[in-house]
Amino acid sequence: MRAMFVHGPGDLRLGEMPRPEPGPGEVLVRVRAVGICGSDVHTYEYGEIGGTVIRSPLVLGHELAGVVEALGPGVQGPPPGTPVAVDPSCSCGHCEFCVEGDPHICPSIRFFGNWPHHGGFREYLAHPADLVHPLPEGMSFDEGALLEPMGVALFVADLAGIRLGDRVAVLGSGPIGLLCVQMARLAGAAEVTATDVVVERLGAARRLGADMAWNAATEDVVARIVDHTGGRGVDVVIEAAGAPETVEQAMEVAKPGGTVVLVGIPAEDRVTFRASVARRKGLTIKYDRRMKHTYPRCIALAQAGRVNLKALATHHFPLERLGDALDLVIRRADGVLKAIIEV
Amino acid sequence: MRAMFVHGPGDLRLGEMPRPEPGPGEVLVRVRAVGICGSDVHTYEYGEIGGTVIRSPLVLGHELAGVVEALGPGVQGPPPGTPVAVDPSCSCGHCEFCVEGDPHICPSIRFFGNWPHHGGFREYLAHPADLVHPLPEGMSFDEGALLEPMGVALFVADLAGIRLGDRVAVLGSGPIGLLCVQMARLAGAAEVTATDVVVERLGAARRLGADMAWNAATEDVVARIVDHTGGRGVDVVIEAAGAPETVEQAMEVAKPGGTVVLVGIPAEDRVTFRASVARRKGLTIKYDRRMKHTYPRCIALAQAGRVNLKALATHHFPLERLGDALDLVIRRADGVLKAIIEV
Amino acid sequence: MRAMFVHGPGDLRLGEMPRPEPGPGEVLVRVRAVGICGSDVHTYEYGEIGGTVIRSPLVLGHELAGVVEALGPGVQGPPPGTPVAVDPSCSCGHCEFCVEGDPHICPSIRFFGNWPHHGGFREYLAHPADLVHPLPEGMSFDEGALLEPMGVALFVADLAGIRLGDRVAVLGSGPIGLLCVQMARLAGAAEVTATDVVVERLGAARRLGADMAWNAATEDVVARIVDHTGGRGVDVVIEAAGAPETVEQAMEVAKPGGTVVLVGIPAEDRVTFRASVARRKGLTIKYDRRMKHTYPRCIALAQAGRVNLKALATHHFPLERLGDALDLVIRRADGVLKAIIEV
Amino acid sequence: MRAMFVHGPGDLRLGEMPRPEPGPGEVLVRVRAVGICGSDVHTYEYGEIGGTVIRSPLVLGHELAGVVEALGPGVQGPPPGTPVAVDPSCSCGHCEFCVEGDPHICPSIRFFGNWPHHGGFREYLAHPADLVHPLPEGMSFDEGALLEPMGVALFVADLAGIRLGDRVAVLGSGPIGLLCVQMARLAGAAEVTATDVVVERLGAARRLGADMAWNAATEDVVARIVDHTGGRGVDVVIEAAGAPETVEQAMEVAKPGGTVVLVGIPAEDRVTFRASVARRKGLTIKYDRRMKHTYPRCIALAQAGRVNLKALATHHFPLERLGDALDLVIRRADGVLKAIIEV
Repeated sequence: MRAMFVHGPGDLRLGEMPRPEPGPGEVLVRVRAVGICGSDVHTYEYGEIGGTVIRSPLVLGHELAGVVEALGPGVQGPPPGTPVAVDPSCSCGHCEFCVEGDPHICPSIRFFGNWPHHGGFREYLAHPADLVHPLPEGMSFDEGALLEPMGVALFVADLAGIRLGDRVAVLGSGPIGLLCVQMARLAGAAEVTATDVVVERLGAARRLGADMAWNAATEDVVARIVDHTGGRGVDVVIEAAGAPETVEQAMEVAKPGGTVVLVGIPAEDRVTFRASVARRKGLTIKYDRRMKHTYPRCIALAQAGRVNLKALATHHFPLERLGDALDLVIRRADGVLKAIIEV
Repeated sequence: MRAMFVHGPGDLRLGEMPRPEPGPGEVLVRVRAVGICGSDVHTYEYGEIGGTVIRSPLVLGHELAGVVEALGPGVQGPPPGTPVAVDPSCSCGHCEFCVEGDPHICPSIRFFGNWPHHGGFREYLAHPADLVHPLPEGMSFDEGALLEPMGVALFVADLAGIRLGDRVAVLGSGPIGLLCVQMARLAGAAEVTATDVVVERLGAARRLGADMAWNAATEDVVARIVDHTGGRGVDVVIEAAGAPETVEQAMEVAKPGGTVVLVGIPAEDRVTFRASVARRKGLTIKYDRRMKHTYPRCIALAQAGRVNLKALATHHFPLERLGDALDLVIRRADGVLKAIIEV
Repeated sequence: MRAMFVHGPGDLRLGEMPRPEPGPGEVLVRVRAVGICGSDVHTYEYGEIGGTVIRSPLVLGHELAGVVEALGPGVQGPPPGTPVAVDPSCSCGHCEFCVEGDPHICPSIRFFGNWPHHGGFREYLAHPADLVHPLPEGMSFDEGALLEPMGVALFVADLAGIRLGDRVAVLGSGPIGLLCVQMARLAGAAEVTATDVVVERLGAARRLGADMAWNAATEDVVARIVDHTGGRGVDVVIEAAGAPETVEQAMEVAKPGGTVVLVGIPAEDRVTFRASVARRKGLTIKYDRRMKHTYPRCIALAQAGRVNLKALATHHFPLERLGDALDLVIRRADGVLKAIIEV
Repeated sequence: MRAMFVHGPGDLRLGEMPRPEPGPGEVLVRVRAVGICGSDVHTYEYGEIGGTVIRSPLVLGHELAGVVEALGPGVQGPPPGTPVAVDPSCSCGHCEFCVEGDPHICPSIRFFGNWPHHGGFREYLAHPADLVHPLPEGMSFDEGALLEPMGVALFVADLAGIRLGDRVAVLGSGPIGLLCVQMARLAGAAEVTATDVVVERLGAARRLGADMAWNAATEDVVARIVDHTGGRGVDVVIEAAGAPETVEQAMEVAKPGGTVVLVGIPAEDRVTFRASVARRKGLTIKYDRRMKHTYPRCIALAQAGRVNLKALATHHFPLERLGDALDLVIRRADGVLKAIIEV
């Protein structure tokens, strides 16, 4: 079967690999839609991510929906033909962290599309049946693929502990930021402020629920947000850009006693900010590590129509044009939010 | 000035009392709208509530909006003419509970309209300036009065710890239950189920956000809710009826590890349920005691248009017809939800 | 091999059963010490517990330590000869509750010694390797068996959320209550008050860390505790007797905003208390359901010498005298706290 | 009356100021013992702290015990002659943060001994009666003064959420670190590891409850702690040194899902660490801002003999030798932990 392999920085090639057989406890999924994530882009551009170097050709892609094709030995369901979303996090299930309900920090986790584990830019994959979630009627494959980044945003909202009536700032309005904007609204925030440096993304933020959206390229967003709250700051800050400036801004716009969730992954692997700002406010800073236990809740919310996933899927490409899709996302051109590969 | 006094069970009389002068730290408020609460009804019917007997004629009413008339010595604002909501809870400000941020359980609390503290069914009242909240432009006095029961529902949602995508059951769809339905939706519940024994209230529940509404007079609501969740039960149960049956139902419909918030005040001052049901599920049961710190957040949400308060204000009466209003609420006739006294 | 079977109420007989073979993922344990729990006593006396009736002869016993005898296929360790404690809770590992880290409320849990699952009053048992915890050097089999009730008390302390400097009341000073007294002290309570109706147990409570111990048979313990705190009540109440009175007392002695953890299992399967007491204080009531994730932490604390388990193991009997041991526990005679069966 | 004033960096002079009169709500306290805090030292050395420059001569000192000398108008007690500890945090009592129970982050807080508010290195001071806590019988003035830093450590333990059986690392074993070691033990940690670069402080850490103490000047403390936990890391890290290295170490030695509390105040006002380390573990990082609501609980614990405050008070000086005392603390010579000024 066909698959797209990254061989090194910027080196993407269509190749072949054997169609997998589903083992015990696994299902075979025919891939239909795979979203491109910022981490895919980073790995494609640099041949590594967060210190993990690609030492052999790798299939990327972990935001994924498809159709069950066959069941491995002993697997009860879902039956072939079922449209499904695929949770890319295969945790060990036995360590202290898995047993205590924190599989997202399992030290032995195999994360799909993270070297050396092939991801979803291919025709078929075999996956643990527990991690394959049937899509409700009427949900598209695009939406099914987007349940993965939605899960990140939902988990971020869990971490943030948003209360009814809170004010929330989301710094960075890429796909994850836009989903965080929606989750903040959905969690009952009275006021959501978004920022970005790309004009189209500010428009998307407003359309998807932000009460205000400031352009950090042309405005002093810290002053804007702090002034708007009468000098107090916001209850919750979600940093979803991964830039050094946004981390710094996050501390500045949080209220005393506020919570800052850091979601963005910086290119430079150091974080730095003014200690006195965070200390005087007694801030709580939480690092998001992917997500946990989110598929059922995301599916329930999507099924109830309480989230707009479709608006994120702005562009579609066939598998062999993955390179063009990655390019588009890198250039942030043409109003792209999420590019979806249709296999 | 005029005021309506309860002299004993069912004994309501229009009377006179001196117009108060605002003391230091107080404002004088001209009363405009006062909602009738279930506790007003209970006190009117029985001459007591929860063990507190009315030993002298009492003015009831604690859901209140009006206009600032004058400021006491040293008070900075809000200026005369400002429409305001009045928080009825005057806590001591100095005890361990007040200092630690829990004024709702202050042992020395003076709760407005609770014997021996006169409430709002009168023309003017003097109140601590800290407890008087300016209404945003465009908010009606009805809505201002309803910020008080909305605050209870918001605090119940805080206690319940609703997560995005949770399933919530609200048992009892009177005014508090209907506000809890709205708060559960607003907090991101994926599915809200309401129950009641009054058909009109089930309709109101559906209109205000419940995905399902079951009639406990004609259906086995426990079976309905449990079956609908595939036997699992719901994440959060809000008991807002105060009936012995609804407390029992609350334990039955909660999922293992679920949270039950008890809001309703039972006529009989005992609660009873099957211990084994609650124990096997390892339930957390929280008693709501009024609310705390809710006015600013309620106002922010109402201002942002995220709650429908108007739908609750079904009937209006002038002060001298308070008796008719109480009667209507007792009979639950004519689709009444909240009766508002206009002074 | 030999085993002691309960055939019905009060009907205990020594019998034979085949020595089990450890299956895949299991280890074979030679039983050395088994504590008698209140639930064993209840099942022996009444032939049922909490609605679960013994429909065929059952081996009781779930507080257990022994020695690894053999490993099933594919099991890496611990090696034969290792002294171990046996966690009696076999949860399914796959349901929503297990996956989210709450195996104690797994609806498919098989709890060892709970009909129809044979427990530990026998010579050998096969058990999942994951649930078998090596004992640190110097820990006796008595202590190993007592890690199970200690785990309950540790989990109760987790639920209670005891803060440094809190005041804690433990109502009921049987083995679980005495372990709760120790856990409350260990968690930094400034003052621990215990109650019971058995004089020897009050002495044990004092020796094991209670600052005060009141005899509920001869004193008004509510008045004692409330007066001692100047009318305020205690931060945390742990109800470990399961009597109707102690549940009622728990609500009375808790401070406003306090937490009550209900651990005791009542004979009559109904709980009842004054709603107004719990409501006015805005209490949080948590039901303990066994425990979760406690063995490693209990072992660490026991190894560090921070808990006195030996003091609980007051009596020892050989397997064939299990009936005498149960009798002693029922009569609460001879200063018995925990009777241990040595196999 | 006499007072010691800092006029600028290193410029300390004995001076005179009028003896204050206690106003309404205040008590007059005759100062007896004042501890020297790291922030006093910093202000003395540099003439500023955390951006607050001393623009006029300032009396430092905020760890304070004394005797009530007189009561202001309307104050009920405590009666003259009562030994008391003085809480140095005068929050406004009216802002959102005070009302919600977070006076430690009140934006209008007046912190005693922080410019322009004179502190305790003088003979008398007038202070709000609410903030003056009677000492229990038998408690020395030294211990009374040390309730303030103990409160910081207790609040840090609250923030850290230490569970029974946790492993805790305290990085930095100055007075605050040593109190954190004690609080971690008191909160039920199974294992406490301390670090420092001063040998005497490591000895003190061991004597006060640390199970291990590593010298960061001569050992790779990260490797030591991580290896000792089998590569897992510790549940809770308390950073109490304020050095750039200890912040970095804190992230490294925390377990996945762990909590890091940052207490130390760095000389350089920037914090920096590897983002990938904190992100992959999904760490929660909390900044300590002084403390709240700690005096009653500290007093209860000290009274019950569960903390050793005396061991910290290593040196005593009369008021006029404050300069020598500051010098000693700066040089960390002579095994000094806490130097106490006796007035």
